[in-house]
Parts: sequence; C-alpha cells; structure tokens
Amino acid sequence: MGRGSRVRIPMATRNRNKIDEANYVLRDFGIELYPVNVEKLEIQSEDLEEIARFAALQAYQALGKPVVVEDSGLFIEALGGFPGPYSSYVYKTIGLKGVLKLMEGEENRKAYFEAVVAIALSERDVKTFVGRVEGRIAGEARGSHGFGFDPIFIPMGFDTTFAELGIEVKCSLSHRAKAFRAFGEWLRTNIDILSLWETP
Amino acid sequence: MGRGSRVRIPMATRNRNKIDEANYVLRDFGIELYPVNVEKLEIQSEDLEEIARFAALQAYQALGKPVVVEDSGLFIEALGGFPGPYSSYVYKTIGLKGVLKLMEGEENRKAYFEAVVAIALSERDVKTFVGRVEGRIAGEARGSHGFGFDPIFIPMGFDTTFAELGIEVKCSLSHRAKAFRAFGEWLRTNIDILSLWETP
Repeated sequence: MGRGSRVRIPMATRNRNKIDEANYVLRDFGIELYPVNVEKLEIQSEDLEEIARFAALQAYQALGKPVVVEDSGLFIEALGGFPGPYSSYVYKTIGLKGVLKLMEGEENRKAYFEAVVAIALSERDVKTFVGRVEGRIAGEARGSHGFGFDPIFIPMGFDTTFAELGIEVKCSLSHRAKAFRAFGEWLRTNIDILSLWETP
Repeated sequence: MGRGSRVRIPMATRNRNKIDEANYVLRDFGIELYPVNVEKLEIQSEDLEEIARFAALQAYQALGKPVVVEDSGLFIEALGGFPGPYSSYVYKTIGLKGVLKLMEGEENRKAYFEAVVAIALSERDVKTFVGRVEGRIAGEARGSHGFGFDPIFIPMGFDTTFAELGIEVKCSLSHRAKAFRAFGEWLRTNIDILSLWETP
C-alpha cells in the first residue's frame, strides 16, 4: 500500500520514539499515526489499562474525535512491580543507574514490559489493546537504540538488551509492537471506523 | 471548645493516620475531619498542588459538597525529587529498604516532606494550603510512630526520625500539620464557609 493511501490517525504523545515504533508496525495495516498536541491526562493507578482508558476519554473530549493514546511500563518482579506505571517518572529521577542499584545482589531478575493502546470511539466506548514481553533486567546498561529502560531490559530468548537490538528486531517482539499490532488487526476488521479520520 | 460544638468536615482518604494528624491540629480550630468513601482520583504530575486540586474537584463533583483532600510526598534532592508525588506507590513496592539502598554512599542526604490540603468550594473555586518541612534521610530506619517514610526522615534541628517522635512533636513541625494549620486559619477568617457542613 502506497504512502498516499494511508489513513492518518492522531496520537496524543510527545515521545517521537513511540510514534516511530507504532508506525513501524502500523504501516502493514495502511495506517500512519501523527502526534497531536493534546494534554494527556494520566491518573495514578497500578493498572496501565485504567490509565490508558482514562487518558483516551480525556483526549476524545478535548479533541472531539478519537485519538490514540499509549501507556507502557516496566514491571520488575523482585521490586513488587516497580517502576510499573511510573516508569517515565522513575527514569527521569533515579534513572537506569537507580534501578540497577536497587537490583544489586538480587538473583530474581525477572521483569516484563507492558503497553496498552487505547482509543475512545465515544464517551462510552473505549477500546484497549494490550501487549506484553517477558524478560530480565541486565547487570548493566548496554546499547543505544530505543529509549527509556531499553538499555537494561533483555527480552526472553535473547542475550542482548532492547537498546542493543535495532527497531526492526525490537518491533518483532516488543510490548508496544504487540499492542499496536492488535490495534491494527482490530481496525482491519472494523474498517468503517477509519472513516472517522479520513480527510475528504 | 467542647467536642459537641465541633464542625465535622468530610475528608477523602483511607489513611487513618492522616485523619489523626489532621485532627490533632484542627481541634484547636473547633473542627473535626471524618473519612468519607469517595474515590480520590489522582493524576500523574510532579506538582502535588496540581494533584490535590484535581482530586478536590473530583471529590466535590462526586459528593456534591466540599470535601477535604490531602496529598503529600517525600522529595529527596540527590534522587531528583524521587519519590515525590509517587511516595505511597514507592513505599508499597521498594519500601524503606529500597530508598535506603538508593541512598547508599550518597553524601547529600537533603530531603523535604510536602503536603497540600485542597478543598473545592465550587466547580471553579479550589483552595489549597501547602506545608513543608526540611530535613535529611537517615542512614537506617528507626522508630515506630507515624507511617510511610517517617522512619527514615530526620527533620532539621533533630537527630531523631519522625517515627521516633510521637504525634505531639511531629505535629508541632510536620508538613501535614503546617498545611492543616493554614487550612484552620483560613476557616477561622471565613467562618461562613462552615455552614456548608453544619448539620441542622
């Protein structure tokens, strides 16, 4: 499908990496996301789906049309799920270094990344799509691709971190790719929805 | 002022310690808070006042009358303000032990506790009252009074943690006491507001 025939859908994010990873997956579905500047109101909750659902409704109300939102987090078993839904705050404050320090001497290094894509079709109809990838926390930060906690997360079946893998490999197995692929599949079987965004 | 003449005001919290500390201060103002079971919707923000303001509005909308909300956090300088607004989540996951581990070998142990009390008088009129206490992070957890991060916080001018001090000393200097005292002072000069809660 040529670029010209893609349906462009707004996404509420300021994170260019998220858009790039989403579009890497969605191009197979003839869809292209573009960032819109709408306040993404996030509630405090331990449930990513609840956060994404609320944000999608807020964005819908603010823009008067469906807007894609995505929320994701790194959940470390030995730390009770920390940093979870607050991953970006934790990344900004204590960073990779802080999380690695918390994991010093810890034998259980199991962790997973989860992403939830949400979109409100009306005030009462919010669709959510969840993706998860299991893995473990590395002993030290490695690699320069991706963003956030990618340099310390090793997906199951690999010996390299997300940040050592390029976008192509990351998007073949990541939480975000899975969630956006589910979103793409859903749109494919609900193509009438696309008319909500089609420009005349 | 006798107990019988106190004005009872609802507070949206499930934390009995917060109610106790607030009432310790507010009894001097003839006010007694009692817990109400209303969802306290907290947004993700690095600004406690913004979180408290939003929660106060939500509680007002849910109950149809002004409800006291309070939000507080521990801000550690060397950790970029972490755990800040997410203190209760961080306490529940990595706990005192995790925060002490992050501070291992750290010479700058400066920190402060901040509390914001908020109350919505209408959809457009939210009052907020801020209290702050400076101090430092202890080398190890000590004491059994209070709750949350009290065992690792040493207020300026002391050598003991909040958890080693009883409620009387804590409430003579704490962030929460300062915020509720400001709330009490404001009510004293706006006594007509009290009629919003008075039972006939």
